[in-house]
Amino acid sequence: MRTTARPLTCAACIALVAAVGPAIAQGRGVRDLPAREVPLPSHVSPELREIIAAPVPPLGRTPATPEEWKRAQAAADTPMAKLAEQAAAQLGVRIEEVEVAGVRCYRLTPAEIAPAKRDALLVHVHGGAYVFNAGLAAIPEGVLLAAACKMPVLSVDYRMPPDHPYPAAPDDVLAVWKDVLEHHDPARVVMGGTSAGGGLAMVTTLRCDEEGLAKPAALFLGTPGADLTKTGDSMHINAEADHMLGRYEGRMQACIGLYADGVDLRDPHLSPLYGDLSGFPPTVLITGTRDLLLSATASTHRKLRAAGITAELHVYEGMSHADYLRAFATPEGLDALGEVVQFFDRYLVADGPDEG
Amino acid sequence: MRTTARPLTCAACIALVAAVGPAIAQGRGVRDLPAREVPLPSHVSPELREIIAAPVPPLGRTPATPEEWKRAQAAADTPMAKLAEQAAAQLGVRIEEVEVAGVRCYRLTPAEIAPAKRDALLVHVHGGAYVFNAGLAAIPEGVLLAAACKMPVLSVDYRMPPDHPYPAAPDDVLAVWKDVLEHHDPARVVMGGTSAGGGLAMVTTLRCDEEGLAKPAALFLGTPGADLTKTGDSMHINAEADHMLGRYEGRMQACIGLYADGVDLRDPHLSPLYGDLSGFPPTVLITGTRDLLLSATASTHRKLRAAGITAELHVYEGMSHADYLRAFATPEGLDALGEVVQFFDRYLVADGPDEG
Repeated sequence: MRTTARPLTCAACIALVAAVGPAIAQGRGVRDLPAREVPLPSHVSPELREIIAAPVPPLGRTPATPEEWKRAQAAADTPMAKLAEQAAAQLGVRIEEVEVAGVRCYRLTPAEIAPAKRDALLVHVHGGAYVFNAGLAAIPEGVLLAAACKMPVLSVDYRMPPDHPYPAAPDDVLAVWKDVLEHHDPARVVMGGTSAGGGLAMVTTLRCDEEGLAKPAALFLGTPGADLTKTGDSMHINAEADHMLGRYEGRMQACIGLYADGVDLRDPHLSPLYGDLSGFPPTVLITGTRDLLLSATASTHRKLRAAGITAELHVYEGMSHADYLRAFATPEGLDALGEVVQFFDRYLVADGPDEG
Repeated sequence: MRTTARPLTCAACIALVAAVGPAIAQGRGVRDLPAREVPLPSHVSPELREIIAAPVPPLGRTPATPEEWKRAQAAADTPMAKLAEQAAAQLGVRIEEVEVAGVRCYRLTPAEIAPAKRDALLVHVHGGAYVFNAGLAAIPEGVLLAAACKMPVLSVDYRMPPDHPYPAAPDDVLAVWKDVLEHHDPARVVMGGTSAGGGLAMVTTLRCDEEGLAKPAALFLGTPGADLTKTGDSMHINAEADHMLGRYEGRMQACIGLYADGVDLRDPHLSPLYGDLSGFPPTVLITGTRDLLLSATASTHRKLRAAGITAELHVYEGMSHADYLRAFATPEGLDALGEVVQFFDRYLVADGPDEG
């Protein structure tokens, strides 16, 4: 690369791809985008198209008091917990509630464990905007991962606001991780989760670096909450295109505020994208073209790659934030889960796929 | 993955990430996005920010007659050819015009060739919406690649409309490829290019499959013209956000029409994303969060991965279509070029990086 570092006027390439489009940049560097219609995407399976087209029920107004938050949490988490148990039963995944380092967790054991992964463990950190999915509502993604990876999963039911804002959640995940280290070879343990779960997996990895602890052998960061500020192209470009998150303002921002509890959102323990990722293990990242967190995910990928970390990015056409979970039974959902399995196997299975 | 294929109501995961955002889907499956402002991205280098903020001159009205097209081509290509020669001189890349299988090409020889790549070759296919960058204007990307990869490059100056519409361009690239096969071990030859160049590299690979020819050892597809129809989320979501292409309608669509010359745009020899990619070699793909062709690039990546092909996707925050070329001297531009070098080296250099 050294040769290209020689000074060379950028004008040399300005029209390389040439002569296409009106392309008038605004003075301030801000781009004004007119309103537009986004049709259903074509390059996706009929099953995924159906899910993209399906209406997502509105969430109602944002809670204002701790009591209202708790009511909203119960309203969301109670049915989710039931569905989690149904899913586990259907997939043949055994659920066991355990306490690990004082933190409630769920051991998820699939009916079939791959021989090469008998001694392996996946520490799962759930999503839910740092506010939702307490109790059994924490585990649906962990159940899917246990069945797909054919390995045991430990899903962390970390404490959440309004009673337990930051730093309770990352403290709990770290406490569980320290306990895991006492009973497992870290080379046999991977970690991952979606949204807040991806963010917390990143924060835990940063804290391992800071405290000189061993890190997981690999990470899965599903559209991670890597930057809790309203930062990145997709926060603007995909506002309202993302049918799961909608836009930053509103419920999402309220959840973040409730969680951060006044701490600067740019603190790397809240927004790990601002941290030093150079000690991260190999990482697989998943996002979609409508994801409000597409930029956060892609920027995390780039920061890892720039630090020389093995990192893979997968972008799914038409998917909003974490849609691969909602669409887990579609070809694309299975494909996304398959990418995670394949990536983890590269580090957990001696004769696993080394690439392609 | 078989375990997850069991029927399981999607409702089980519908609120997995839970309870965030208003998220009201429209009945027709079309999403109406209001106007918005997109600020300069933060998670990029100051150098790239400057380039993103810099105005790109408007192109004037779309040519209507063959003569007007030729004037527009000359106006764009003449200064580009000069800049190409300057760039080659500055980077120490020797330019040699040659005829290969009756097609004008440029041999680009860097001052330093890596010992492990003395017998290797990169076949470069230039961009320019299938209309622009004839003659020496074809080579700037090839010059960058020659210097960065430290290997010889053969850049194909394929015929273009208005005199030579489709299929002249893919016919020329294929003719050159057949000649290359007579003089090189295909395991030592890679192919790539940006935009139209990426599309033509894909079409050439498809035609190799159809004609039973050996294929390149690896491909670089920079935001490829994989689908010439107005298809994919980013065609809508990134319209006007992409400062290189603007939107599909206008100059871009006119170039495509001039090139396709009445042939169905869904023909895989025009839009290779509709073809069978299962025989493709390992492929590295590059795009950006503002790229009108983000979806085409990501969908190509997914189709390759689903076929079991080794394929890597890199998405750069804030970059429009092919911005990594315009921004080649920024940290992100060098990083993108570095990803291509690293990927090619995996297949061309015996002791090359195997990952990370």
